[in-house]
Amino acid sequence: MSLAGKRILVTAGPTREAIDPVRYISNHSSGKMGYALARAAREAGAEVHLITGPTTLTVPGGVKASSITTTAELARAVTECFGWCDGLIMAAAPADFRPLHDARTKIKRGTDALGLELEPTQDILKGLTKERRQGQVVVGFALETDNAEKNARRKLREKGLDMIVLNVPGEDSGFDTETNRVSLIRPRRKSVVLPVLHKDEVARRIIEQMAQMF
Amino acid sequence: MSLAGKRILVTAGPTREAIDPVRYISNHSSGKMGYALARAAREAGAEVHLITGPTTLTVPGGVKASSITTTAELARAVTECFGWCDGLIMAAAPADFRPLHDARTKIKRGTDALGLELEPTQDILKGLTKERRQGQVVVGFALETDNAEKNARRKLREKGLDMIVLNVPGEDSGFDTETNRVSLIRPRRKSVVLPVLHKDEVARRIIEQMAQMF
Repeated sequence: MSLAGKRILVTAGPTREAIDPVRYISNHSSGKMGYALARAAREAGAEVHLITGPTTLTVPGGVKASSITTTAELARAVTECFGWCDGLIMAAAPADFRPLHDARTKIKRGTDALGLELEPTQDILKGLTKERRQGQVVVGFALETDNAEKNARRKLREKGLDMIVLNVPGEDSGFDTETNRVSLIRPRRKSVVLPVLHKDEVARRIIEQMAQMF
Repeated sequence: MSLAGKRILVTAGPTREAIDPVRYISNHSSGKMGYALARAAREAGAEVHLITGPTTLTVPGGVKASSITTTAELARAVTECFGWCDGLIMAAAPADFRPLHDARTKIKRGTDALGLELEPTQDILKGLTKERRQGQVVVGFALETDNAEKNARRKLREKGLDMIVLNVPGEDSGFDTETNRVSLIRPRRKSVVLPVLHKDEVARRIIEQMAQMF
């Protein structure tokens, strides 16, 4: 199954939202799944652009990459590149919430509890899928700890995705592991439940499914 | 100046405090300053134990290391090892606040603002300096964005430290830089204001000062 001639946009890694000049909110995303997808798409013949949050990984050979830190920067980068691509895989784990006030000076340690007001960040996929061209394939990820399949199917529907990769975190699966346990969920189809596989192999299976959609 | 025969305990890197199974609060500490201090202490002849938060750095040769994630784990590890050491350098940047409730399940994205209740974490140095032996040297760090020297001197006094390394973050100084701009502040002495130097050189200057205190 080939992606020759296709342009694939992949996002990877976490985002960080500043609480003050030194502190931030982030998540345990390592970027491994997204980097593996960029590599697999490239190996399948696609032209690949990777938009990556802060990770310690090396960009795969032949892949163009750009770096972002916050969810707002990720949204801007994806929106700019979306028109270019034939397929988008949103493997990044953007922060869903950010501090309402980004303190200019470091918050002092005190003895009292502190209330941190958070506001939801932009829902990147929701905005994008409205303006996509016919034939553009969009794949999302869902990390769910409860009511996993039900929540993932709702996300698939609400965001108008072509496929959602459901990730149920565990000892051998999730953010900072070499392996992953995922289900591939497409509208009006039975979910494909994959066994625990190395993230490189999970990436190949996702790219295979994606290639069938063009 | 030699630290031969001395046992030096160094802490390095950030800590992480869980908001829920996937999200956490952390800070931009890279661990570079602490690792450079462990290396410099070792080169000065000391036996060195490094307690490190999550970083991407390699432990210097000849240095014993143990890993922690949260501020509570850091406090436990330092308290356990404190009796062993002749000198402690607290270069770690522990989170000062942690979520009051560690949510067992992932917080769902919503459209509403969210209030996150934070509580202060344990003040590690404050607890330790009370129970130290005579002659045990304790060095702390202060990262200050306003009223820097005044805040650092207060910290020095309140925590009963022998020296505080004041770090004023800037483009060539702070958490994720190769260089650092610091002042070395000791009780009843004029501050030693160092120029911008590579963190390895800053580490050697700190170790030199420390060696004079034994």
